[in-house]
Formats: sequence, structure tokens, C-alpha cells
Amino acid sequence: MDTIFSNIIEDSRKYTSLGNVASYIPELSKANPHDLGICAIDVNGNEYCAGDFDKKFTLQSISKVITLMLAIMDNGEQRVFSYVGAEPTGDSFNSIASLEVKSLHKPYNPMINAGAILISSLIKGNSAQEKIERILNFTKILTDNENISINKSTYLSEKETGDRNRALAYFMKSYNSMEGNVDEILDVYFSHCSMEVTCRDIAKIGAVLANDGVLPWSEKRIISKEICRITKTIMVTCGLYDASGEFAMHIGIPAKSGVGGGILAAVPRKMGIGVYGPALDAKGNSVAGIQVLQQLSEKLDLNIF
Amino acid sequence: MDTIFSNIIEDSRKYTSLGNVASYIPELSKANPHDLGICAIDVNGNEYCAGDFDKKFTLQSISKVITLMLAIMDNGEQRVFSYVGAEPTGDSFNSIASLEVKSLHKPYNPMINAGAILISSLIKGNSAQEKIERILNFTKILTDNENISINKSTYLSEKETGDRNRALAYFMKSYNSMEGNVDEILDVYFSHCSMEVTCRDIAKIGAVLANDGVLPWSEKRIISKEICRITKTIMVTCGLYDASGEFAMHIGIPAKSGVGGGILAAVPRKMGIGVYGPALDAKGNSVAGIQVLQQLSEKLDLNIF
Amino acid sequence: MDTIFSNIIEDSRKYTSLGNVASYIPELSKANPHDLGICAIDVNGNEYCAGDFDKKFTLQSISKVITLMLAIMDNGEQRVFSYVGAEPTGDSFNSIASLEVKSLHKPYNPMINAGAILISSLIKGNSAQEKIERILNFTKILTDNENISINKSTYLSEKETGDRNRALAYFMKSYNSMEGNVDEILDVYFSHCSMEVTCRDIAKIGAVLANDGVLPWSEKRIISKEICRITKTIMVTCGLYDASGEFAMHIGIPAKSGVGGGILAAVPRKMGIGVYGPALDAKGNSVAGIQVLQQLSEKLDLNIF
Amino acid sequence: MDTIFSNIIEDSRKYTSLGNVASYIPELSKANPHDLGICAIDVNGNEYCAGDFDKKFTLQSISKVITLMLAIMDNGEQRVFSYVGAEPTGDSFNSIASLEVKSLHKPYNPMINAGAILISSLIKGNSAQEKIERILNFTKILTDNENISINKSTYLSEKETGDRNRALAYFMKSYNSMEGNVDEILDVYFSHCSMEVTCRDIAKIGAVLANDGVLPWSEKRIISKEICRITKTIMVTCGLYDASGEFAMHIGIPAKSGVGGGILAAVPRKMGIGVYGPALDAKGNSVAGIQVLQQLSEKLDLNIF
Repeated sequence: MDTIFSNIIEDSRKYTSLGNVASYIPELSKANPHDLGICAIDVNGNEYCAGDFDKKFTLQSISKVITLMLAIMDNGEQRVFSYVGAEPTGDSFNSIASLEVKSLHKPYNPMINAGAILISSLIKGNSAQEKIERILNFTKILTDNENISINKSTYLSEKETGDRNRALAYFMKSYNSMEGNVDEILDVYFSHCSMEVTCRDIAKIGAVLANDGVLPWSEKRIISKEICRITKTIMVTCGLYDASGEFAMHIGIPAKSGVGGGILAAVPRKMGIGVYGPALDAKGNSVAGIQVLQQLSEKLDLNIF
Repeated sequence: MDTIFSNIIEDSRKYTSLGNVASYIPELSKANPHDLGICAIDVNGNEYCAGDFDKKFTLQSISKVITLMLAIMDNGEQRVFSYVGAEPTGDSFNSIASLEVKSLHKPYNPMINAGAILISSLIKGNSAQEKIERILNFTKILTDNENISINKSTYLSEKETGDRNRALAYFMKSYNSMEGNVDEILDVYFSHCSMEVTCRDIAKIGAVLANDGVLPWSEKRIISKEICRITKTIMVTCGLYDASGEFAMHIGIPAKSGVGGGILAAVPRKMGIGVYGPALDAKGNSVAGIQVLQQLSEKLDLNIF
Repeated sequence: MDTIFSNIIEDSRKYTSLGNVASYIPELSKANPHDLGICAIDVNGNEYCAGDFDKKFTLQSISKVITLMLAIMDNGEQRVFSYVGAEPTGDSFNSIASLEVKSLHKPYNPMINAGAILISSLIKGNSAQEKIERILNFTKILTDNENISINKSTYLSEKETGDRNRALAYFMKSYNSMEGNVDEILDVYFSHCSMEVTCRDIAKIGAVLANDGVLPWSEKRIISKEICRITKTIMVTCGLYDASGEFAMHIGIPAKSGVGGGILAAVPRKMGIGVYGPALDAKGNSVAGIQVLQQLSEKLDLNIF
Repeated sequence: MDTIFSNIIEDSRKYTSLGNVASYIPELSKANPHDLGICAIDVNGNEYCAGDFDKKFTLQSISKVITLMLAIMDNGEQRVFSYVGAEPTGDSFNSIASLEVKSLHKPYNPMINAGAILISSLIKGNSAQEKIERILNFTKILTDNENISINKSTYLSEKETGDRNRALAYFMKSYNSMEGNVDEILDVYFSHCSMEVTCRDIAKIGAVLANDGVLPWSEKRIISKEICRITKTIMVTCGLYDASGEFAMHIGIPAKSGVGGGILAAVPRKMGIGVYGPALDAKGNSVAGIQVLQQLSEKLDLNIF
């Protein structure tokens, strides 16, 4: 089993040269484009790692999976989905046009930026700081890692280059689609995008999702089965930006990518997988990471369809 | 087991009064809105039916599943997806705007009208008639029913009211996105939408998909596993118009609906399901049919996520 | 006075090398890109010509001015503008997206293709042939030229490459925005676009518009003052595709261009101008023709603002 | 002459009951919907007033005319139009969608909100306060009125409800279409929208435009003829939101409306006109004000086409 993983990493590393490290945030551009790592943790707690599995990177859009679950736990499914839709969209992740053109008073789904900002506004807490603490604590439990923290310089970079997200937030405010103070909400959003993890950390989150909400390492239920299912479904339909359909078609595993280079995957009833490879394709997904997951899906027959 | 099915039908029939029969085609408006039937056929060939399972209706958009499979068999996956995308879209099924606005030279996916018309253009055959025959024959094999035929008056209705589809076809022609004669292609399209079936027929198609391409009743392989997977994936992401996300989130079964009132569902490795209930919700899906599938998914634990 | 005109042509001819002859229709691509001519006819009937003023070209979009006037004469202002708007648009001339996205049941204005096709549908006549005859006769009167005719090979070219216009027409049909038979309406449309003229011919049309509807050469009223005003207004706001604003800002003369290389201009109370220069800029307007009009506007103080 | 004006006001006042006072800003909703006034000042300085010509109201979008002129004087035509287009658009005044969908790095024109915010960013000055002072001083000169000031409570209302404008500004920032600090730029924008005037004040601005930049009361040139022409042209093509085409077609006078109920009009070489009637039609234009201008245009033959 361990050989399968190291062979796949070895075989896929050549694809890292086909992509580029994200450059819109100075911090992200410092990553080594040739890094590639994987960690898988099955629902019995067994762990398989290979390559650069212990390199640190920021969650970026992968954090949207965490806040979605916490927001539903905080507000109930019905309230959350009265603010944000559950439909995939052909628009790009930071699109604002459809909100206006179709008079959408709900962003399409929680995985595009507009939807994820809205989700940030729904996290309970008396201040931005308290909300950030709650997200951080929830992430520590999901990753079984007390040391998860926010990368300060990435957070500051996000904040400085965040005008498009400000536009999205003010637009939703002007439509009365979102409540609360825009600066505070974006502070929460930029913070959770900047949480720093390794492949093992996100593999653990995937394992909790795969195990329907029960921590595989303690058999303690943290999330309801229903919330886990909703989350995995939205990962399939919306998890890889506008390559979600293609990924589902060829790999068939619920997954969520981030421009930090990570991909979190959850194979229902089987295992969680964390992949890291910061060289991205044109759509913002880890180019070698996708290769890794494709080979793994085939070798271990993980496709759910 | 049979009681489960009849109870679900009995319990769900009240929802038929929440919807309306499709009216844009005169033929469709003649359906009885209170009809509701189900048929399930598992991968071992066992059959469970209840309600109006033997009422006839036209496939409409459900036929897009059949032509997608045949087009891939005729052209290979690569060629088909060089003409049409595999990404879900938030646009409505008959949308033309994104083709222009985003300079899309490929329609988003094979389940929206633009994509399905393009798929029709890819079916092999020397004439519209020959293509229609091939689709019909393939459908007869998938349904194990020699008597499948085209409802002539529905076909004529489709043709008469098909100006939006003509606009889509000519638009793709003008972009050089589609080859062939528009009138002939639409003839194929209107014909396969007008094929007449029962719940049992579409349950059989679902059973073939569930069984990865092997006919459960003869153990003969008809379609490759890969094509079945692609098809089921696209059913999950795009099968219920712009309610696909919501359906996947709550029911979690690959499915394709049609405005004739049918829903074809395929539970991987388990069973095919056909539901019929012509009273539609605002998005064009069988309102009671969705209830039936939701209850069945819960009772038999069919959710794939 | 004559020297002004020949100097302007001499001076502007160098700009012909900055553009390209239209290529989407084979017939248009045969034009000589270095041709440049002008003819001006004032409201007293005086005529000033220079350069290639007697070269023939097809009206293309300039014909939209003629059919707009005839449609209002046939139907009244109120009826015409119940079918088509009078607002400029930032969309391109052949756009379909806004019709869907904004649920426009009226095309923006009569100068974009959708609007002009709709105007063609409003021309009175019992057959396409009769409608074409009526447009042709009206054009003969406006140009004081019995020999105006349709260029057959251009007409056939238009018809062969007209899929985008078919898409627009069927879309409007499907929205019930347009009545009548699509093939017949497009036959009228392709025919009037293919009428062949010289600079002098379109200068005469401009002179009639400038003279508020009275033929300068016979003092006979042909069109009402109100219809002339409406037409000149729409020429200012929508006459040069998406360069209309820029043209109005710098030149300030009601004008309508065509991809055949012509520009028809009408200076209220002063003169009509016809310019021909088939080398087009990126927006489809005669690149040297615009220079000619700019210089003329300055030298003769023709700017209406 | 005076009777013409009072008759028109008397005759048009009934139309005030067809509209509604703007309500999105609390301050605007306090206006009396039945107010209606007019003032005309010809290029010789003669003045004709009737009705509620001395009622105060805020300029709102009319101020866009003032800042456009000042921005061109500050930066030159070329620089201004490298940041903002000159093309009319069918989009609504506060639209953001086309900026994204068409990757517009320039807003369509200076009369829509995006364009006007950009224009505000181009006004010279070392601070928001200094820019506001410069606009105020320029307005005092144009209106020959030392007492022009900013209505503080309207300004605060604008600021409080300005989230859509914030979205537009941040969007342009994120596209690098606009330079400077968003809060400061919007402060300038909200301030100039809140300048308080009467019909006589805006009639004077119109008279300066009509007189090609020379103050009629002192024969001093304040603005170049070229800038006046550009401004009047843009008023024709974009001055009345998405009713600009209809207004030009029937009334034919360069004009700019504001949701405060004012309309500033400038008849080239003839006169400036200020109208006030706070009851607005569905498109945000003074419903009775348009009637007043239509009657005046007919009676005094002011249509430029």
C-alpha cells in the first residue's frame, strides 16, 4: 500500500512543471512549484503518506468546506440555504455578474467567493476575533492538530489585494443579501483562507467527512451525517472551480481545491486524502495534484459513480 | 420490499397537486396531473413496481442520457468532449446568452438543450432517418423493449414550437461549433425527445447504468464502464436542470428528469429506478417524483455521498 | 468649395491602409481597399463630389435607415416602437445575449441586426417579393435613381452566411417578439442589405433627411418631418455600431455606416453626405470615411452640438 | 414669451401625479411630488421662469455633467477617455455586470455611476476636501451663484446607503481601472451629488453649455468649445438613463436628469433650461419635467435634429 502512494508521487511529479504557482498574493508565489505530497487516512485511522506531505501551505478555498460545515452547525441547514444556493455555476469563482444579471439574492453556492463570504457572515460570534477563534478551534478538532494557526503575512497579503472580494461583499450588502459589517466579515474570510496546514491535516478533515462526521481516531461524533453528506455533495458539484464537472467525470471523488496548492478529498465510507502541489493549472487547481488523485482513484477503485 | 414502494407512492401522491403539467407542447398538457408511478430494477434483475408504472409518457430531456452514451460510443469520449463541455451551469436549460457572452464554442454540457442538440449532430448515420433509427434501436436494447416508438403527434408539436431550439442550433452553426444541416439535426433531436416509454422502460436504462453497462437480464455488456460512469456523473451535476445541486444534496442519486414527467435514476452497483408523475414544479421536474425518490433514498440508504 | 472636397479626399486616402475590407462575405472582400470617395448634396440641390464617388457598393447596414422610415410610414411610429426600442446599447450589432438575459421582448433599437430584422418583418406586402419591391421603389425615390438594384451575388452570399441572423430571428420568434415566416423575413433583410449604390445615391438620401423629408430636387414631400427627426436621432445614438458615441462626440453629424464601406450622413437643415471607403476599422466602420467626415465637419462647421 | 412658460407649467403639472418621489435616500423622499418649475436663460442672458423655479433640490446625477467638464479641464480629453468610454449602454445606471462580462476596463461612459465615480477620481486636488472645494467653486462660477453648498444630510444619506457604489468602486480598483483611495473618491462623489441648487442655477449651467463655454452674463470664456460639445453630445446619448434614446427622439435637446427631480438642458447656440419636478417615472426621470421639455421643444422649435 505504501508503495502505491510513493509510486504515484514519483510518477506524477513531472506534471508539476506544467503549472505555475499562484502569483496574485506575494506570499503564495514563494512556494516551490516542484513540491508534491500526499497523505491518506482511512476511516479506521490508518495513515499512508508520501512525498512532501509535511510541507506547510495555506488552505485558501479549502477553508470554505470548514466554514460551510460550521455555519450549518451554527444556523441549521434551512437558514444557511436561505442565504446561499446549492447549485453549481459555470461562472468563475469570483464572478459578480450573475448576481446582478439574474437578480440573484443568493450566491449560487458556498464554494464561489460570494457564497463563501456570505457563509463567513453566518458564523456565530460577538466579534470578528471570536468568529475566527471558533473557526480555528473547529479546524483544530477536525485535523486533530492543536498547532493550526493563521499565517499572518498571507492574511495581510489577502487583505491588501482583496478589492474584488470587497466588491462582492458590498454588492451583496446593497442587495440586502448579507447582514453585518463588511470589513469584519472580510476579516473572518481572509483569516480562514490563511490557516496553515499540511497534507496530513487536510487528509484528517477528509477522513471525518468520509466517516460521516465521526472522528476516526476517537470515534467521537463531531458533525451530523446529514451535514457531511451535504458537504461532500457540494464538493462534487462545485469543488474544483469550473473544472468540477471534468474532475467528477474522470476521478469521481468529492474534493475541494485551493490556490495554495492543496486538494482535500473525501471518499465516502473509505478515506480522507490530502494532496499538496502548488503548481496550478489555468483554472487554479493543483496540476500534479489532480494527476495524483486520478491515479489513486483508478488504482484503489475510489470513483463513487 | 413491495410494500415500501406502494407506501411511498401512496404517501407521495398528495404532492401531485403542487405542480402543473407542461403546457408548452399541446400533447404534454393532456397528461393526468395526478398520475404517479415507480419501477425499480436491481442489478440482479429483480423488479419492484407501484402506482401508474405502466402509463406511457415521452422521454423529453431523459433522452439526452441515451444520445450522450450513443454519441460517445460512436465518436469516442475525446471527440465528443471536444464539441461539448462537462461543466454544470447555473443557466437555464434553453439558455443562449452564455454562448455569446463568454464566447463559448462548446455548450456547457450535454444536458442543456444546446449541448443535447450538438450531441444529436454527432450521432452516426447517413441521414436524419438513419440516425433516428439507430437511437431507437439502442433504446430498444437498453429498455429490453422492442415496442419503443416515437409519438408522432408529440414530435410534430415539438417541431412546431421549436423556434428556441432553432435559434440555439443556428447560433452554434454561426460560431462553427456544430457541423451538419440544422433542420436534419433538429429532426433527430425532436424525434428522440418524443420516444414513448413507461416507468419500467426507464428503470431498465437506469439498471444498465447502475450495472456499469452490462444488461442485468442477459449479462451482456452493451456500454463500457467508463461511459456509464461519465453518464452518471453528468446526471448528478446536471440532471435536474437548475435544481441539480439541491437534488444531489438531499437525495444523492444520479438522475435525469424530463418535462414529460419522468425521472430516470441509477444507483451505482445497486439499481435503476423509473418514476413518472407529470405534475411539474417551477423548474420543470416532477414534483411528486422528487418526493418519491427522496423517500426511497432514505428508506433504502441509496445516497452515494 | 470643390477644392475643399478634393483636398479632404487627397488628405484622407492614406488612412485607407489602416483598415481591412470586410471578409465574412466573399463578395465584399473583392472591393479595392484604397478606394475613397465623397458626394455632398445640400438642401438646395447643389452637389459636390470628389474621389471614387461613382464606385458601386452594397448598402449593408445603411439600408436599415431606409427600412426604418418605410416601416414607420407603413405602421405609424407607435406600432413600430411597440416592437422595437429606441435606446442605444453597448452590445455589438449582432448580439443575442441581452434579449435573453434582460428578457427583452423588444430589440434595443432598429440599427442592431435584431432590430433591423424586426423592422423588415413590419414592411407591408403580401409576399417577400412584394416587400422587397416596395423597399426598392422607396429607395429609387430617395436616391432619385431608377437604376437601383439588388446585387444578386452579394444577396446569395448573405443568405449562405446568415446563420447568426437566423438565430436572432428564431429567438425573437420563440419570444413572440416577431410575427411572420422567418425565411421570408430574412429574405427581405438580406435583399435590402444587398442594394447597390454609389456615394451620390446615399448623399441624396441624406439630403432628403436633412431637408426634413422634402426631396430637394423636386420640392415634393416624401416623408414627414417627424419621421426624419426620429431617423436622424437614431443615427446619432446608434448609427456607427459601438463607435456611435465617439463619432457623435468628435464629428457630431447623424450618420449610418455599413460594412460595404459606405457612410450616409445627414446634417439637419444643411446637406446630405455619402462617403465610400471599403477599408474598415475594427468596429466595422470605414476608417478613411470617418476621417473624411471629421475634416468636413470641422471645415464646414457641421457639428450639431 | 413668459406666458408660454407659465402655460406649459400649468398644463404639465397634472403629470406630477403619475410619478413618485425617490425613496432610496430618506432626504429625497421629503420632496413635494407636486412641485414643478422651470427657468430658461438664453445666450444673451435673458431669463424666463415659471412655477416652483426657486425651490431647492440636490443635483444628484446632474452633477456628473459638472465633474465631466472639470475632469477634462484638469486632465485633457485624451487622458479622461483613456479611463472612461464615450459609448451609450443599454445597461442600468448602477450596473456592474458588463464590467465583468465584457472585461471592460473602462466604464461605458461618464454618466453611469461607474463612469462618474471614475471621473471623480480624476478631479485634481491633494485631498478629498480639496477636490470637493474645486468642484464647488467651479459650480459657483457656472451658476453665477456664490451660495451653492452641499446639503449635509443628503450627503450623509448617500454615504449610508452607498453600498452599490462601493461595490462599483472596489470592482474597478480590483481591475486596476481606477487609481486612488476608494473611501476618498466616494466622498467626493457623494458630495457633488449632494450640491443644492434651484432651476435657475442649472439653467445657467445649461446656458454656458449652449453658449459654447462663454458665460452669457460676463462674456468670459470658462470652458473650451470642444469640451462643451463633448459634454452636450454625451448628454444626448446618455443623459436620461435608459430613456436617453426616447428623449432624444421626441425632444431632441441635450439634457441630463437627476433623481433629485432636476433636468438640466442645453440647446446649442440658443439657451440653457433648468426644470424641477421631483415626481419620477420608473426610469428615474422627472415625469412632468419631461412633459415640460417636450412642449417647450415643440413650441420654440428647439429640436436639434
